[in-house]
Amino acid sequence: MRRLSVALVHHPVVGRDGAVMTTTVTNLDVHDIARSARTFGVSDYFVVHPIEAQRALVARIVAHWTGDGRGLSRIPDREPALSRVRVVATLADACTAAGDAEMWTTAARPRARSISFDDARAHLRDDGRPVLLVLGTGWGLADDVMERADAHLPPILGVDTYNHLSVRAAAAILLDRLVGDRCAR
Amino acid sequence: MRRLSVALVHHPVVGRDGAVMTTTVTNLDVHDIARSARTFGVSDYFVVHPIEAQRALVARIVAHWTGDGRGLSRIPDREPALSRVRVVATLADACTAAGDAEMWTTAARPRARSISFDDARAHLRDDGRPVLLVLGTGWGLADDVMERADAHLPPILGVDTYNHLSVRAAAAILLDRLVGDRCAR
Repeated sequence: MRRLSVALVHHPVVGRDGAVMTTTVTNLDVHDIARSARTFGVSDYFVVHPIEAQRALVARIVAHWTGDGRGLSRIPDREPALSRVRVVATLADACTAAGDAEMWTTAARPRARSISFDDARAHLRDDGRPVLLVLGTGWGLADDVMERADAHLPPILGVDTYNHLSVRAAAAILLDRLVGDRCAR
Repeated sequence: MRRLSVALVHHPVVGRDGAVMTTTVTNLDVHDIARSARTFGVSDYFVVHPIEAQRALVARIVAHWTGDGRGLSRIPDREPALSRVRVVATLADACTAAGDAEMWTTAARPRARSISFDDARAHLRDDGRPVLLVLGTGWGLADDVMERADAHLPPILGVDTYNHLSVRAAAAILLDRLVGDRCAR
């Protein structure tokens, strides 16, 4: 199994109008994706933010649940999840720290050069480079991130064309599709 | 396809110590599960709370994004999701409103009488009664809810025994496993 990491990008992402922007940190993004990451054996969960004060906020959330913060004694189950969070300034930093990883992206719209989930599952089991699954906040990753990606996963579709999943829900489904236990089905 | 609804239960659920309790509403539970419900064709998303002021809070959140609230013009994509939210006082009310539905539950621990996800997918495509997928907040559904259930889905397992997913992540994965588009894989 290749090493699998996840990155949640707050910049560069696009806003409602399609312009490149920076989003603020959402507390439950830190918790939910860390818990999903731990459940599915993700080695590192990178929270990517260019603003120092926002990185400090994430570090403080993590310390509350892992270090000598009061959260650790209140809900000890959060420690194995939150301890996988790494706070970095840029996506390039995340790629390097993930072991010079390939970048796999996903988006609500279909892209050229996309690989199926079945192929992606198989690739994760070959001897290739580590993989960084890159998720965008806001209205999704900026085009230049998409263009630098090594592979695109297909959009998660339900019953029709509505696919406005939260990034927390999308991360959970992606990890289940990529590494979830299919025998339990 | 049978009619499929989801219920998020705030009472009766258990707390950290195993005692039956009532949890408070989390804003992102309303949003995330509504967005996942809309994506996967769920007809109704019941938020179950015995306290009137908490039900009023959920109704106010929904109105902000669907009625004449400011949310509708800011993020119109939320309307098709949040408009599926129904606010009810008891799980029995949800069952009735879901069309005298069967109750299917899920839990982090394995249960007797559980059906596989493959069987559950097949059942949803037969001509049986409507199905209400019942999710617990806090540390999960109280035992008497589990005992009244018509079927139990297996726990969502990742790579080992850690399965402390958020209810938002669990709902997303369950709906994907039950009705997601498997061809896209």
